[in-house]
Amino acid sequence: MNKNAAIGIFDSGVGGLTVMAEIIKALPCEEMIYFGDLARTPYGSKSKETVVKFSCEIVQFLISQGVKAIVVACNTASASALEELRQKFSLPIIGVILPGAQKAAEVTQTKRIGVIATRSTIATGAYVKAIQSHDPQIHVISQPCPLFVPLVEEGWLNHVVTKEIAKEYLFSLKANKIDTIILGCTHYPFLRSVIQDIMGNEVTLINSAEETARVTKEILFCAGLLCTMSQDKRHRFYVSDEGSRFIELGEQFLKEKIRIITQIDLGKGNPYV
Amino acid sequence: MNKNAAIGIFDSGVGGLTVMAEIIKALPCEEMIYFGDLARTPYGSKSKETVVKFSCEIVQFLISQGVKAIVVACNTASASALEELRQKFSLPIIGVILPGAQKAAEVTQTKRIGVIATRSTIATGAYVKAIQSHDPQIHVISQPCPLFVPLVEEGWLNHVVTKEIAKEYLFSLKANKIDTIILGCTHYPFLRSVIQDIMGNEVTLINSAEETARVTKEILFCAGLLCTMSQDKRHRFYVSDEGSRFIELGEQFLKEKIRIITQIDLGKGNPYV
Repeated sequence: MNKNAAIGIFDSGVGGLTVMAEIIKALPCEEMIYFGDLARTPYGSKSKETVVKFSCEIVQFLISQGVKAIVVACNTASASALEELRQKFSLPIIGVILPGAQKAAEVTQTKRIGVIATRSTIATGAYVKAIQSHDPQIHVISQPCPLFVPLVEEGWLNHVVTKEIAKEYLFSLKANKIDTIILGCTHYPFLRSVIQDIMGNEVTLINSAEETARVTKEILFCAGLLCTMSQDKRHRFYVSDEGSRFIELGEQFLKEKIRIITQIDLGKGNPYV
Repeated sequence: MNKNAAIGIFDSGVGGLTVMAEIIKALPCEEMIYFGDLARTPYGSKSKETVVKFSCEIVQFLISQGVKAIVVACNTASASALEELRQKFSLPIIGVILPGAQKAAEVTQTKRIGVIATRSTIATGAYVKAIQSHDPQIHVISQPCPLFVPLVEEGWLNHVVTKEIAKEYLFSLKANKIDTIILGCTHYPFLRSVIQDIMGNEVTLINSAEETARVTKEILFCAGLLCTMSQDKRHRFYVSDEGSRFIELGEQFLKEKIRIITQIDLGKGNPYV
């Protein structure tokens, strides 16, 4: 494996760019290739079988682009497809669930952790399983927050309505006296201040994206795959549908310009799948 | 064409079942075949090119099932793909935009009509074009309401937060003194009472689904295609992903049981496309 190859990263849409932003922060020398499956986004409401199929197609494409490792920057795909991807492909594949779960299990004092995520991520039970495999004594309270993604995409980050909705969603976590909460969806770090206000400063917020970046660095280091050339980075972006809104929202998520973007068709007749 | 054949109807997801419910009410003798593209839902955020491609695949499939006419029960597909579908296929194809636009143009007294829909439907300009082709003097005020679909799917139909969000979205329509408002998305009729409360009783709400059912009946009648057998109806449902949530939400939308449902793959290797 070429240590100066790019890292592949994918999500159903634009959300994974928050994970990419953290990886760029942790690994500024690495080049990255991002795939956003805009034609089939979101994955949150789809079956495991379908999410596995879509994820395999994307990983196959990223491998054809010569990547050295893959970050599954999508909670749904990490919860549903990671095992199948690791069985099928031999390069390092890192998901977003285990890093956040591990960190939360380490920092909790009261052994009461809250997890907020989309309905489908919660339904897989992946966070509960991951946390309890670390420490079976930990009590996990899960809360789906299906309106958070549309609120973030609407740009209502500090809107009074967003605070009302957050209060309602977080009520059971407050009542259950958790001391740590995992932001289990790529969009949720944008609501960090609203969530922190409601939960209070004594509750630790775990950003899965940050933890995933930390773990990615560790895994590449241990595999001898960290980039050794301080080349001019040219991150590349591939999308499966027209990308103008992806660029607009994505540059906010990524906090840098999206320059090289290509639309490809992963369906019928695609040479990569 | 066999007048006792079924009517085909499709949507990106479950929303089109509100249109199907109105067609069943208007045409109780007709048998229907519904297709919900759950693997690729929603269409609202996708490009015209992609929506045309998906819609053609679905119509081809419905034709392979022997339908006599097609109802495009999806505002995005009606706005983006109707023309291409009519060029490509020779059976009657009915969309949801023109029927609502026509009705609104007929009932407005002040010639000021509001249209609420998803961001992508508004962006196509299809409602404005349709209304002004009826009467160029009519002033149309459009308002995207991207949080309405997730609110309906969350079941928060009368929640205080829903009222707050609706007030904010409808503010410009009230300020512009419209007397007629088109519910330009299949989910919006569920928010009818919230919208009517905010707009006041002097504003007429146009339900595109009801108007589409009326037009479907008219078109089948004029084409000599109304069913003449009072057979036992067995509506059939096809979906492109696992259908349990579709059934759960769909039975509320449809107000009857979903009995015969089949999952098929419209992608690679599908014999129908």
